[in-house]
Amino acid sequence: MPDRRIEDLDEAECLHLISPGGVGRIAYTSRSGPAVLPVNYKLHDGAVVFRTAEHSPLDEDLRTGITNADYKVAFEIDDIDLAKRQGWSVLIQGPAHHVTEAEHAALQAGIDTWAPGERELFVRIVPSRITGRRINPA
Amino acid sequence: MPDRRIEDLDEAECLHLISPGGVGRIAYTSRSGPAVLPVNYKLHDGAVVFRTAEHSPLDEDLRTGITNADYKVAFEIDDIDLAKRQGWSVLIQGPAHHVTEAEHAALQAGIDTWAPGERELFVRIVPSRITGRRINPA
Repeated sequence: MPDRRIEDLDEAECLHLISPGGVGRIAYTSRSGPAVLPVNYKLHDGAVVFRTAEHSPLDEDLRTGITNADYKVAFEIDDIDLAKRQGWSVLIQGPAHHVTEAEHAALQAGIDTWAPGERELFVRIVPSRITGRRINPA
Repeated sequence: MPDRRIEDLDEAECLHLISPGGVGRIAYTSRSGPAVLPVNYKLHDGAVVFRTAEHSPLDEDLRTGITNADYKVAFEIDDIDLAKRQGWSVLIQGPAHHVTEAEHAALQAGIDTWAPGERELFVRIVPSRITGRRINPA
């Protein structure tokens, strides 16, 4: 195996890597245990924001959790090149909140959804912990 | 917005889609709340198998959880084309176990690791629930 290097990334580097937005994966506690789903996200004022449909399974699970002050979610973004065996991943952990009406309009223009259908709810994850790592070529 | 279709996938279709192996994301309860990390996986006898390093943060978190009979993890695999706004994702939920010594040798040849370094432990996720969805172009 070639001698590759694993490197921990600091918060600033993590935020830089994820700043273009795109597809990330939200991990949360669902009614059937841990769950992960891909969503389209944007970074907005240092927080991860994504849209979901009201009454979707994701919405129902998050809605139950968000009422609990201790409820936390995780959000993962990566860019991995299997052929070259290199890439990076960033993990954001923190509480999830619904975006207020006042912020809604400002966000609406900027965040596409990956899945079709009505997407009426914005969810924001405020990072309480940001970690990342990069695998460099040998 | 174009009128795209969202389609639920049955278990057989999900297993077919993930059968080539590659990069998936393991979601689990860590000491700092929900966490997600990319790992290289293979499908082996209908279960997801991946490797991790003994005493890595992932190992330590899983090790604590695995001793609890109710501990479940989630594993997500996807293939999303943002430009074409189409793709699929599969979610596997179930308990995680360490692979026994007897099975170890058979697996060792087949599963590469994404990250460098010692990777001595095999973890297997036996699906108790397999769900998936596909977004088709309009």
